[in-house]
Amino acid sequence: MTYFIDGGKELTLEKESFMLELERDPLWKIDDYPNISLAEIRERTMAKVRRLADDLANSSKEKFTHKMSVISVIDPGFWTRFGVHIGLFFGALQGQATPSQLAYWLGKGALTMQGMIGCFGMTELGHGSNVAGLETTATFDPDTDEFVIHTPTLTATKWWIGGAAHTATHCAVYAQLIVGGRRHGVKTFIVPLRDPTTFQLMPGVNIGDIGKKMGRDQIDNGWIQFTNVRIPRSYMLMKHTKVKSDGEVIKPALDQLAYGALIQGRVSMVSDSANVAKRALTIAVRYATVRRQFSSEPGQPETKLLDYPIHQHRLIPLLAQTFAMAFAAREMNTKYLSIMKRLNRAKLADNEVASVLEDLKETHATSAGLKAFCTWMCLNIIDQCRQSLGGHGYSAYTGLSTAYQDFVVHCTWEGTPLMDPLHAMAERAKKGLPLPENVSYLALFVKSTRRPSCKSDAKGDVCSLTTLKEAWGCVAANAIIQAAREFEDASKRGLDKDAAYEACSAARLHAARMHTFAHLLNHFISILETSPAPLRTMLVRLATLFATHSASQHSGEFLACGYYTPEQIYTLKQCINDLCAEIRKDAVNLVASFNYTDFVINSPLGCYDGNVYERYFDLVRRNNPQKPVPYFESLIKPLLTRSIEPVVGPKLEIDEQGEED
Amino acid sequence: MTYFIDGGKELTLEKESFMLELERDPLWKIDDYPNISLAEIRERTMAKVRRLADDLANSSKEKFTHKMSVISVIDPGFWTRFGVHIGLFFGALQGQATPSQLAYWLGKGALTMQGMIGCFGMTELGHGSNVAGLETTATFDPDTDEFVIHTPTLTATKWWIGGAAHTATHCAVYAQLIVGGRRHGVKTFIVPLRDPTTFQLMPGVNIGDIGKKMGRDQIDNGWIQFTNVRIPRSYMLMKHTKVKSDGEVIKPALDQLAYGALIQGRVSMVSDSANVAKRALTIAVRYATVRRQFSSEPGQPETKLLDYPIHQHRLIPLLAQTFAMAFAAREMNTKYLSIMKRLNRAKLADNEVASVLEDLKETHATSAGLKAFCTWMCLNIIDQCRQSLGGHGYSAYTGLSTAYQDFVVHCTWEGTPLMDPLHAMAERAKKGLPLPENVSYLALFVKSTRRPSCKSDAKGDVCSLTTLKEAWGCVAANAIIQAAREFEDASKRGLDKDAAYEACSAARLHAARMHTFAHLLNHFISILETSPAPLRTMLVRLATLFATHSASQHSGEFLACGYYTPEQIYTLKQCINDLCAEIRKDAVNLVASFNYTDFVINSPLGCYDGNVYERYFDLVRRNNPQKPVPYFESLIKPLLTRSIEPVVGPKLEIDEQGEED
Repeated sequence: MTYFIDGGKELTLEKESFMLELERDPLWKIDDYPNISLAEIRERTMAKVRRLADDLANSSKEKFTHKMSVISVIDPGFWTRFGVHIGLFFGALQGQATPSQLAYWLGKGALTMQGMIGCFGMTELGHGSNVAGLETTATFDPDTDEFVIHTPTLTATKWWIGGAAHTATHCAVYAQLIVGGRRHGVKTFIVPLRDPTTFQLMPGVNIGDIGKKMGRDQIDNGWIQFTNVRIPRSYMLMKHTKVKSDGEVIKPALDQLAYGALIQGRVSMVSDSANVAKRALTIAVRYATVRRQFSSEPGQPETKLLDYPIHQHRLIPLLAQTFAMAFAAREMNTKYLSIMKRLNRAKLADNEVASVLEDLKETHATSAGLKAFCTWMCLNIIDQCRQSLGGHGYSAYTGLSTAYQDFVVHCTWEGTPLMDPLHAMAERAKKGLPLPENVSYLALFVKSTRRPSCKSDAKGDVCSLTTLKEAWGCVAANAIIQAAREFEDASKRGLDKDAAYEACSAARLHAARMHTFAHLLNHFISILETSPAPLRTMLVRLATLFATHSASQHSGEFLACGYYTPEQIYTLKQCINDLCAEIRKDAVNLVASFNYTDFVINSPLGCYDGNVYERYFDLVRRNNPQKPVPYFESLIKPLLTRSIEPVVGPKLEIDEQGEED
Repeated sequence: MTYFIDGGKELTLEKESFMLELERDPLWKIDDYPNISLAEIRERTMAKVRRLADDLANSSKEKFTHKMSVISVIDPGFWTRFGVHIGLFFGALQGQATPSQLAYWLGKGALTMQGMIGCFGMTELGHGSNVAGLETTATFDPDTDEFVIHTPTLTATKWWIGGAAHTATHCAVYAQLIVGGRRHGVKTFIVPLRDPTTFQLMPGVNIGDIGKKMGRDQIDNGWIQFTNVRIPRSYMLMKHTKVKSDGEVIKPALDQLAYGALIQGRVSMVSDSANVAKRALTIAVRYATVRRQFSSEPGQPETKLLDYPIHQHRLIPLLAQTFAMAFAAREMNTKYLSIMKRLNRAKLADNEVASVLEDLKETHATSAGLKAFCTWMCLNIIDQCRQSLGGHGYSAYTGLSTAYQDFVVHCTWEGTPLMDPLHAMAERAKKGLPLPENVSYLALFVKSTRRPSCKSDAKGDVCSLTTLKEAWGCVAANAIIQAAREFEDASKRGLDKDAAYEACSAARLHAARMHTFAHLLNHFISILETSPAPLRTMLVRLATLFATHSASQHSGEFLACGYYTPEQIYTLKQCINDLCAEIRKDAVNLVASFNYTDFVINSPLGCYDGNVYERYFDLVRRNNPQKPVPYFESLIKPLLTRSIEPVVGPKLEIDEQGEED
């Protein structure tokens, strides 16, 4: 099963080798994170950056990516600190620099960090996902052939810039290009922040530390203000838009290729969702087979948590979701790599570009949906797993409270799902045009007047994968068509395109969610065909549980479109009970197939040998053993030994006189 | 509106006075929490304990409780540290000590902390909510007239004990009473932990620090192990079960009164849910009326977040939920106080006890359900509000990431909702017996064969409060009856009572959730009648939004029981859109009516004057201004200046020979 999940024995062995390498390196000690300060965390993380930088220079990109995907489970905050340089900063260079610019920055150490470390200056205090609204300006000065980078207002302060506070020497700054008084949109400029030899701030650059966050304290997010900072004209990345020394601005023919870097980020977040969910479930399932609570008969040992139906209901469907995400992540990855390969080839034959761009758009939309819903799904998995540990889930030593705090930011950055491409697909379907495979269900529903429904009440029919696939297709198509209809209604009421999109935003979000479920299920089913025979029974169970559980959570949709009757929904629920009980028998093996070592799991409650209490106690016992309470003399003793005199004021003459009256 | 929410002008003025008092006291500075260490947080919290202890001695219980409910929003961790002594430890004394025992401990300072500070030793490493399964033993030694308190195994270690690590001198220890070799169940024993004059641990007592948690680091949770610690027989709390010096164990007639303390905890958690939700929404709504994003037309100012329908959908229904919770909390409080009054009177007339106990049981069940679902609801509100701040929600300075981490434990402790009493009510309904008012909807559905449904498709009818009340009653009754049926089916299959309860646990949980929604709605509607006329229109809107939004989130239930048709569900959704847009106009006033000062809100993004960016920047700017990066010389410089020699090994003779061959 492990080989199947990982995508082959070779990849499994490689992953195992990375885990071993990291475990043996004292720098990667992670079980004491709860005890060390923000400053120590930051410093230790930099030491790891230093160490990993050599790997970057010496290993293949693919191998390095695989290693980073293991590291991202072990130490998500490190992953971000390193990723800012290699993914965002270097990614911006790759995507937006001309060949000679790229060569120039490579020579300065832009990849290997020999000479410079980069950060990525997009977001501002007052501006997040709306890049077009950024306020920082880059004004061209033809007299000196320079750009002047400037922060005109407080809200234009670059904000959340990872690596800015402590690490970076250079920043890829997103700013409004202004030439001859005219604005030409947001472009990217490489701005030196610190002198690499002294680490002194460059003139006009002000930087501060964003400080404590909910998680990922490993990365030193900072704010940056520029006061008329001058850079050579050639520091603007000019692969697309170009500015000549005489001030002429040359716009590119196609500006869409910037998609690439964003998609890569999303693809890795889908993988990360699957991987982090694997870790959370390993902890929760292992603990639930050790922890006992309440005995069924007096004198008998208490029952294991995982033998309670309510606990199975909580965890086992999450196991099915994790498999669905893992397979979807693998597919996204493959797809992305193949598009990138074609794109690189396409550089030679210009006429291929358009066709690749079409595919890129579709992948863009699917990856946006998968990113949004898989990160939400994973966050829910972490939280459910954490809650399933009872009170111990609240401890910083059991692994999941920190996992939540680290992961939750995935749900925020890089935005929310896109509906526009789905809307376009609905239009295509109406016109009878061919559809990409993952929205092919639309064709069935757009034109037909008779809606499909589940014809048989037999459990085997209601809960078969064939029925469930049709059911989810029906619900997704319904939601997409509904959103398209609301858009048209809004347009008819006279709203312009943007306003009409806003008016149906809830319906669009809902449609994207339903489409993503259908996509996850369809891909899971397609995987079954290629799966090794001994695994198939289990995989079918997992796929069926994924489909029935998510359907029962959205039962209103299935009832509303008339696919299932209330009785059939009830049958689904019984099927979920049966599947939970069935899969529970193999639950321990299934989490073992995720193949993470105790080092990666990094939770005493999720250890392989089940010796959870001793390990947990050993870890906690390291906290200040029996030292005297530091504030006993100053605070506690005065409290315990104080005396309170009742307040009785002097007797007033006026009261005595009053009495006499 | 403020007076109406708070329950009268007097209470509002009192709350304002508390807020002012705390704001003026430098000890209550809270805006620098993200910057200070665990050790500093602990110490500062103890200083507040010291200060508040005098209040405890000098103010009425009611006034003190009101003050604590303000403090619980400002500093939830402090609230827990103080609450462990006053709520749990002193509560245990009040509930379980005989009058002479209570007098004895009061004389030692058990209330005022003059001489002792208490903690509450219930949970163990291996045992949470199953109190009967606790392993710690209290063995009676008739020779010395003492109990021997002992931790027999690792899993018996007292765990999570708030105040144990740094604060407490005494502990109310829950342990198995063993007399003459026989076990008599879990009882409570007061065990000295530390010498109050030296703070040295008592012989046989070992204590450690549980360390870092997800939140509430203000409280020093600890673990305790007892090795044959001896205490006088009279240190066992003997209001109920008594042990005589000759070893005779006298069991109480009625043991149910221990409910009291638990209910108090739950009631305060429902209040707390409402109060914390008020704070979260104040931050989110104020920020959403300042933050702008994307302009509808070029050159125009960007649109305020709260003017986007999708943002309204996110926040406005949560506003309605908060009102529902606030009113329910007020009612629970009143009910609880009246029962407690009757209970104290009942001590005189024994025949009244049974009747009060009936009411207590019902309150117990309702409070358990409200506690469970209101804490979940509030947690969701915090998280949605946090997400609505975009990236800034991830900062520790904007108030909601910490709020989440502090609040999330409310969802864990003191257990999950009870279904048993609802099941009993279903039985009563079947037999035609009278029902308590809050489950009166059962009577309508149990016996009738024709199910009620919404007869009219007109928007005004589908979305009227009368219809919605009937609809929610129908869904709740359905869920309760379904759970009862599953229980009976399981019994028929031969399962014993406990196993049958387990088998239908998912259905029971679902029934409790549906019942709680119906209860919240019914109470909201009943409040409308007593509301001042000028507020009524707004309150009706809020109640309707609460009902329609929660119905649309559970649309499957309404479709399955045939109350609404799919078209009517669609009408509900349109009604939600309209209500969100309508209530949005008053959103700023509504959060103002929650009446929290900027000090209590403690978030630059939620300040009253809307000057969010300056305040946020000022707060963050306090972080290390321009200090040199501490590890530049040791780590960064060597990284930037290193050189990597390509590895080229010596040329081997064997290869040259090979070439020659």
